[in-house]
Amino acid sequence: MHSGTNATRRKGRPLNVDSAAPSAVELAAAVTEELRDYLRERRRDAAYIGADYAVLTEALEEFVLRGGKRLRPAFAYWGWRAVAGTEPQPEVLRLFAALELLHACALVHDDVIDASATRRGLPTVHRIFAERHRDNAWSGSAEQFGLSAAILLGDLSLVWADDIVATADIGVDAHRRVQRVWSAIRTEVLGGQYLDIFAEASGAETVSSAMTVNIYKTASYTISRPLQLGAAAAADCPEILSAFHEVGTSLGVAFQLRDDVLGVFGDPAVTGKPSGDDLRSGKRTVLLAEAIQLAEKHDPAGAKLLRSSIGSDLTDIQVKEVCLVIESVGALAAVEERIGILTRQALEILGAAPIDTQAKAGLAELARLAANRSA
Amino acid sequence: MHSGTNATRRKGRPLNVDSAAPSAVELAAAVTEELRDYLRERRRDAAYIGADYAVLTEALEEFVLRGGKRLRPAFAYWGWRAVAGTEPQPEVLRLFAALELLHACALVHDDVIDASATRRGLPTVHRIFAERHRDNAWSGSAEQFGLSAAILLGDLSLVWADDIVATADIGVDAHRRVQRVWSAIRTEVLGGQYLDIFAEASGAETVSSAMTVNIYKTASYTISRPLQLGAAAAADCPEILSAFHEVGTSLGVAFQLRDDVLGVFGDPAVTGKPSGDDLRSGKRTVLLAEAIQLAEKHDPAGAKLLRSSIGSDLTDIQVKEVCLVIESVGALAAVEERIGILTRQALEILGAAPIDTQAKAGLAELARLAANRSA
Repeated sequence: MHSGTNATRRKGRPLNVDSAAPSAVELAAAVTEELRDYLRERRRDAAYIGADYAVLTEALEEFVLRGGKRLRPAFAYWGWRAVAGTEPQPEVLRLFAALELLHACALVHDDVIDASATRRGLPTVHRIFAERHRDNAWSGSAEQFGLSAAILLGDLSLVWADDIVATADIGVDAHRRVQRVWSAIRTEVLGGQYLDIFAEASGAETVSSAMTVNIYKTASYTISRPLQLGAAAAADCPEILSAFHEVGTSLGVAFQLRDDVLGVFGDPAVTGKPSGDDLRSGKRTVLLAEAIQLAEKHDPAGAKLLRSSIGSDLTDIQVKEVCLVIESVGALAAVEERIGILTRQALEILGAAPIDTQAKAGLAELARLAANRSA
Repeated sequence: MHSGTNATRRKGRPLNVDSAAPSAVELAAAVTEELRDYLRERRRDAAYIGADYAVLTEALEEFVLRGGKRLRPAFAYWGWRAVAGTEPQPEVLRLFAALELLHACALVHDDVIDASATRRGLPTVHRIFAERHRDNAWSGSAEQFGLSAAILLGDLSLVWADDIVATADIGVDAHRRVQRVWSAIRTEVLGGQYLDIFAEASGAETVSSAMTVNIYKTASYTISRPLQLGAAAAADCPEILSAFHEVGTSLGVAFQLRDDVLGVFGDPAVTGKPSGDDLRSGKRTVLLAEAIQLAEKHDPAGAKLLRSSIGSDLTDIQVKEVCLVIESVGALAAVEERIGILTRQALEILGAAPIDTQAKAGLAELARLAANRSA
């Protein structure tokens, strides 16, 4: 992977001089460097708006740089490699890094929506700003200030993401193809987020309604569209885009199912979220829908417990009881099986697709990472 | 002004067949038609994401179409006419209409930030969705649901605005110029919004800090950048852009000062906001900063009353007392004088600029509208 200054790279030094197929870790580091450079440029260009605003743009920079697996740019990268075969230039990698800024908006706004206190083991943006308000004994509500700053910070992240895509120097035709995918991914992820809060509010408990949320909030957003973004930047290849749609749908749902399992059974030390978080917040997951359906058939008392527990302020012991029901009715096993089937399906479609061989290997590594992670 | 179907207009029927210089009302109607067509297209294209999501996209459509003076697209229109001389094609008018979708995002998120109950005399978006939650007796907090839906609706409006600009069919060079202005307007308005909540929280009470907010939250956003967007779409004309910067700064500050006056002294039946709204919310306006400075010199008891009243839950009688102090210390008259001076300055720069004569007249009408409106 490259190191060195932006100026050096901008002269055309390729992303990856040492190995033809970067690992997920190397790729994440390269994306983080692009984000670091871009955010530094944007913050410098916005400095005229004042020192107080620089506090917000600095908080955005910190949030974006403080971590994350950079999965979405990685899928875009391999989507490009799948079609182009060659290493993308730095400006193309920056285009893919825009997905992380879109993601920062989604996360920061989602944390406001879910009233989450922590993210990646650290306070969420709205909490950081509420804390700053309290520390300075400012007037008005600290919570409202935190919420307001987080809304604006998310908006800014979305705006700066859009600016990257709109100004990407990739030629008129590639630009038109990329813009089509970019338009879809944003409209879809907002749809997925809204369907998610709507399902939670209206108490939808079918597997199918949870699955629709998974498709738009996760599968399309995390995998299908990033893959397509990369491929569309490289060439006009509608048949590959539709293969990527299939791959992304299977793998993306597997990814979300893994998320659901981690949200209930994950190790707080690894996930950075309190255990049982999804149960307390009342998130309508496939795991839960599966558990309720199975419990209704085989364990009516368990079904009653699930219905009355989900979305309430459970103690740790109550969380353990709920987990036990989810496991004993067979819902955990059913979801694990589903994850396995979906991942294999995705790998099969990839294997059969007319794409670059190294990209197949890179994507298979990413697929395993997405479906079998522990955080 | 045109009527008739979108298809007819897309074949190249000009915006304005009857008169060479549309009135502000005619222009607003034409922009509204562009918005109606665009939102219909986007909602139709997003229908596959599901009927529940259509509720959100419908609410966005209703919010955008239910009113507004369409001032920003009007400034962009005259910015175009100033340079091009000719009537813009419908796709260019659509580009200008993107400013209204950006504005919808700013308003909807601002209403969440300010916890406002009404906008243009109707419930705000977060209230509409909270109400829907209550009416359906859904689970969880109705307020949190309303806030969440409003955040997502605002995000979607921003995304759809960006899509218009990114795909505008105006040629590569015009596109690059327009994108530069579009990037600045969004970064600046978010800066203005953040500086606004920061000033309110930290209790900044100088005229200069209120003025900085005015520049970025209003002057640049409402006038300078829209004018520049129109001019940049028409031609490469850096000297006109800098004249528009000056015009916009003067006139935009006048516009915001008028807003401040209306926020305290406006007629609720005309403004659609409860009287004294700005006083209760603790908004740090130039009017208020002026009043405090003058009161400190000439009316210490009045200064004390102002400081203790601003941002608290005043009765209507207390609002009247505060208004009386603002008037008696001479702050209202000082601000009215400032509005007059700034408007004349703007008109003088316009008069001297090397731009189309009809555009000068159109802009003068808009300037009067911006500085002397009653709502």
